[in-house]
Amino acid sequence: MQSKYIGCVNGGKSRYNEDQAAASQFYLSCGHHTSNGSVTNNNRPKPPNSQYTEVMVTYMGIFDGHAGTGAALTASHLLETHLQEKLTEVKENILELEESEIVTPLHSAITADRLIVGALEAAFCSLDEQMARERTTFAIRGGCTALVAIFLLNTLYVANAGDCRAILSINDEIVPMSRELCPGAEMQRLQTMAFSNPGLLRNEFSNRSFCRRIWKEDIGKKVLCKEPMSEGWVYREVTSDDIRSPLVRGEGKKSRLMDTIGVSRCLGDHDLLVFGTDIRIKPFLIPLPEVKTFNFNKTSLTENDVLIMGSDGLWDVMSNQDAVSIVKAVLQQHTTQDPLRYTIAAKALVAHSRGTASDKGWRMDNDEDASFDDITAFVIPLHMVKKVGIRL
Amino acid sequence: MQSKYIGCVNGGKSRYNEDQAAASQFYLSCGHHTSNGSVTNNNRPKPPNSQYTEVMVTYMGIFDGHAGTGAALTASHLLETHLQEKLTEVKENILELEESEIVTPLHSAITADRLIVGALEAAFCSLDEQMARERTTFAIRGGCTALVAIFLLNTLYVANAGDCRAILSINDEIVPMSRELCPGAEMQRLQTMAFSNPGLLRNEFSNRSFCRRIWKEDIGKKVLCKEPMSEGWVYREVTSDDIRSPLVRGEGKKSRLMDTIGVSRCLGDHDLLVFGTDIRIKPFLIPLPEVKTFNFNKTSLTENDVLIMGSDGLWDVMSNQDAVSIVKAVLQQHTTQDPLRYTIAAKALVAHSRGTASDKGWRMDNDEDASFDDITAFVIPLHMVKKVGIRL
Repeated sequence: MQSKYIGCVNGGKSRYNEDQAAASQFYLSCGHHTSNGSVTNNNRPKPPNSQYTEVMVTYMGIFDGHAGTGAALTASHLLETHLQEKLTEVKENILELEESEIVTPLHSAITADRLIVGALEAAFCSLDEQMARERTTFAIRGGCTALVAIFLLNTLYVANAGDCRAILSINDEIVPMSRELCPGAEMQRLQTMAFSNPGLLRNEFSNRSFCRRIWKEDIGKKVLCKEPMSEGWVYREVTSDDIRSPLVRGEGKKSRLMDTIGVSRCLGDHDLLVFGTDIRIKPFLIPLPEVKTFNFNKTSLTENDVLIMGSDGLWDVMSNQDAVSIVKAVLQQHTTQDPLRYTIAAKALVAHSRGTASDKGWRMDNDEDASFDDITAFVIPLHMVKKVGIRL
Repeated sequence: MQSKYIGCVNGGKSRYNEDQAAASQFYLSCGHHTSNGSVTNNNRPKPPNSQYTEVMVTYMGIFDGHAGTGAALTASHLLETHLQEKLTEVKENILELEESEIVTPLHSAITADRLIVGALEAAFCSLDEQMARERTTFAIRGGCTALVAIFLLNTLYVANAGDCRAILSINDEIVPMSRELCPGAEMQRLQTMAFSNPGLLRNEFSNRSFCRRIWKEDIGKKVLCKEPMSEGWVYREVTSDDIRSPLVRGEGKKSRLMDTIGVSRCLGDHDLLVFGTDIRIKPFLIPLPEVKTFNFNKTSLTENDVLIMGSDGLWDVMSNQDAVSIVKAVLQQHTTQDPLRYTIAAKALVAHSRGTASDKGWRMDNDEDASFDDITAFVIPLHMVKKVGIRL
């Protein structure tokens, strides 16, 4: 759908491409101040009347699977349905709140955008619960990261659980709309969980990080370490307990949770165990996304302003600036009348990061190693947002 | 000590003043690249020789007690000793690292300031452990918040566990050096702990926050709620489990943890129970401080630039700007030669927030309610930092 405006290209490298994607538009429709409205799934609703409002939601998602394609496929098919359901529950409030706020006695203002954020969070969590229930029946294997963007009432919401990335390129500015949720980036949360429930470590992992690997020979020596939840380093006299692996090893993209997985949030993975043990990792791997919002009310947009979304296969070999430069170059070469210019831009991103096969393996134009991973890229024009996001 | 430069005034209102304070200077001394150096507690060390370096540490702390004065008194007497011990463990590294970095194979650079932050964190935690061990023997009752500032090698470190506050007033700028660690401000950490170990809630508290108080009559109704660790609101059909009190009730300064305490970090409180129950609150009340740093290398300082520290009794009735205005007015009235100008400024802060007794109760100059709490204020001149922080 919408291939005219949204360019999504998927350039898999693994035998079974584990990247999946989805894009669609649906309507939230309801009578003013009544609860009789009903959402029409992907079909246009009945013609509007004076009591009737409909709001279009543009939905896009990238789901990067690991340890199987099951979770990514399930998420690409079902997350939209969960999101529609959650948005439907608050649609009356959203419309009423657009210009006002529910002020409650116990909490500061509940605004429309906090309800939409809540719907996104709840959609991720309820899909994860569904995967847990149905994983045996439907052979939902492995897990997947999820990056979802929705346009709704002139605002962009980007919900992220994992290491995909979304950026806005507006005029000459780049606005990051997500951060990579890797174990190293979520040290505080992971250590807080283990601190509060040390049983999760099963005496196999330690909640301390030492500055280097610890061996039996280190027992009794003083080695610099970071205590759980701390920001500073202290000397600690190593004990036999400290020879265990750290809960989080390494930093950034190379960090690993329980020596196993390189993301700290994802969908699925309910049966994921530390290799060769019966230690479950899922208690740490929450499906809850981080959600970032960007309101376009005060932003003037042109045909060259875009949202770029990509799986880690893209961003592993490309900076934000690289991606924006590649997209801008393509857009300059194609007139704004060309319906394929965004698709071509997305293709250029994938082609660039996939590289070309040579004697030395897959290389990019600059002769650096190309991506070894599956690659997915969306290039979404923003100037349509105001046009499509209207109420009838 | 140092009354010439540091003004600390304590204006208690409770029967037993629960605010305590401490200030001192001590030296970290060591031979270059040897481990024979020893710290001299509050006494000047032997004269320097070519192999010998000493660095002065200026230390100030405010300890606001609750449920007794025991913890605050203990902290005001002992925290400095713990800090000296922890700094001594890393003093050689600190001096070596001042211009270089330990680069480790597993972690990004460990810098001198990360070792000093580590020493502050460890000092708070080991004092809390001492209080736990000795609370019966020495009748250490209740708990206390702690706000500690140290000047070391031209950098200010402010470690905060609780709801005291420190700000810098430099030129015309105000730089917050701490944030109030109340239950509402630490919702994420508290909910993560309860999520990871629901047993801590003992079936008496809920890890969800509803937009209003929930009654039996609400069972089956849909009410807006925030799920644990979430940022958005969703409708939830109320069940009997939801009638429990929320782990955190309310927001900001008025928030309460388990309906009991208004801070989320502090020292002591090892025996604190939810009223009328045997439910322990301490698992949530960590002693770990948040530490903020400010380096003065590129800042030119005058005699009117100060660090202001205060207990919540001060900040409850005064904004940062109010405090800075009061201090600036006093400093303008007293020449830089007047050794008492900072003490007079601290006195002015306390006098202002304490107000004067009237028919309508204690009132401030602007006729608003004065503070009901104990009040402590430090006004510390910054231009001395470079002069006193030298190496010999």
